Amino acid sequence: MEHDFHKWLRDHSSLNKPNEGVLVGIGDDGAIIPGSRADTVITTDTIAEGTHFDTSVHSLELIGRKALAVNLSDIAAMGASPTHAVLTLLLPHHFSLAEAQQLCSGMFELAAEHGVTIVGGDTNRWSGKLVVGATLMGQRPTSLSGWLINAAETSDRVIVSGSFGGSLQGHHLSFEPRIKLANYLAGRYEIHAATDASDSLSLDLQLLARASKVGVDLIAEKIPISDALKTAAAQTQLDGALYDGEDFELILTMPADVFEQIKADPGVPCQLTDIGKITPPQQGLRISDSQGAFKALIPRGYVH
Amino acid sequence: MEHDFHKWLRDHSSLNKPNEGVLVGIGDDGAIIPGSRADTVITTDTIAEGTHFDTSVHSLELIGRKALAVNLSDIAAMGASPTHAVLTLLLPHHFSLAEAQQLCSGMFELAAEHGVTIVGGDTNRWSGKLVVGATLMGQRPTSLSGWLINAAETSDRVIVSGSFGGSLQGHHLSFEPRIKLANYLAGRYEIHAATDASDSLSLDLQLLARASKVGVDLIAEKIPISDALKTAAAQTQLDGALYDGEDFELILTMPADVFEQIKADPGVPCQLTDIGKITPPQQGLRISDSQGAFKALIPRGYVH
Repeated sequence: MEHDFHKWLRDHSSLNKPNEGVLVGIGDDGAIIPGSRADTVITTDTIAEGTHFDTSVHSLELIGRKALAVNLSDIAAMGASPTHAVLTLLLPHHFSLAEAQQLCSGMFELAAEHGVTIVGGDTNRWSGKLVVGATLMGQRPTSLSGWLINAAETSDRVIVSGSFGGSLQGHHLSFEPRIKLANYLAGRYEIHAATDASDSLSLDLQLLARASKVGVDLIAEKIPISDALKTAAAQTQLDGALYDGEDFELILTMPADVFEQIKADPGVPCQLTDIGKITPPQQGLRISDSQGAFKALIPRGYVH
Repeated sequence: MEHDFHKWLRDHSSLNKPNEGVLVGIGDDGAIIPGSRADTVITTDTIAEGTHFDTSVHSLELIGRKALAVNLSDIAAMGASPTHAVLTLLLPHHFSLAEAQQLCSGMFELAAEHGVTIVGGDTNRWSGKLVVGATLMGQRPTSLSGWLINAAETSDRVIVSGSFGGSLQGHHLSFEPRIKLANYLAGRYEIHAATDASDSLSLDLQLLARASKVGVDLIAEKIPISDALKTAAAQTQLDGALYDGEDFELILTMPADVFEQIKADPGVPCQLTDIGKITPPQQGLRISDSQGAFKALIPRGYVH
């Protein structure tokens, strides 16, 4: 089956090969990507059975999709456009050819949707549990500034895409990486810091605050709550949004007037919400309570 | 320990950051590598406990080293110079900080030796076995031709670096990836096909022959035998050289007169041996027997 699977992989990943000119793709020791005047963004993320998914519950297509989607989310958080990927598969011995194909189909479909060319990879059978990884490259105009985790400025607004919480009820597998949003905003608006909420809104805000050497004030009732939590009690909703993790929404900081312009722009492809502001570093991470007073926010997230 | 390990990783991989200008490195969602007029070569390889190494026998430094070395070998086989890497680590829960550091030290040392900047990665703890992977990028002059697995031409000589066989006696962990050789030859000589012998000399020759649509005639007694097998019986030596695998030597094809020039060049950094020639495709893969007659060579390799 190894040979059949490799042949299938070659055939199907070449389907994803548009005309942007991979010089050498799958089948050689490495892929060759032509030189370019844009900067290359590179990110890698691997998901593993029992930690990031459960094959007894989740479909192989969605598991494959997630492996690529988490990488796309990182590329979006860099203000970049995804271009090329290499895959890593550690398949348990009991995996059938059909199962390996299902896994890859989920990746290939999402790759095609975002114009990602899969240029290589490494597949192994082993006695361990399923591991699916990808390294994703993207292009970022050399002229683009900001879109870095350390680029928040005091008095920036904190803007998030989508909604938060309850991702374990399915969203952590089926989320839409915010590539379209990033590509729409990156060329048009002055974005300072950017990251994606992978660990949790509170943990990733803390990473952003530390990297940028700033504080953050969140307004609790402004945090957009996912539909999965809409029927829960208010405190459960807020805790879920702050701590559940794996929302894969973008967290952006920008001047208030930039966000006013974005709000008035009908071309913005998804919901954006102002949830607070960047403050001086000594204030740390805070959140308003129901009376509107700020208290320290202790970050935590989903422990895989 | 997670936090301590990440801090240590950041501190130590920045040691590997020379001045070629990574715009953004570890700590953000992705790394940014400046645009370049050279082509980018990308390769990925992952090694796993029980399949590619055994932590009860092999040191963690050597395991880490191997994870990067197998990728360097692929970059060499593309005639490229390695530049940047991202790492993937799946660490068993019982791993200590010191063990994680040992693993990475082996990678970092080899990275520094070859001028590779580690620009990011993904580390996870999990309930499975140790997995260590890397995606490695390199630069290849846009003007370089050949150095592809499908570029062999009929009547080329088949040239290999180093020696073959017995790699399980230690060489599969400590081998020297042939970066220096590749970089020396790539600018100076007309090389047609190139690949590295990772699965086995016979299997990788078969891949090269299939990709190039050619046959190969090997002269059995010319195949260089590794020191590990020098005391074995003649047939054991030959079988080891053809089938053991994980030698990670380069297999190159080139016109006979090019190899004559290379043999006379004192700058070539390692032993090169002419082991046969490229033939028309219908002849397939053959090897000379002790009487000098050719018989079909059935490729096989080490099954992990």
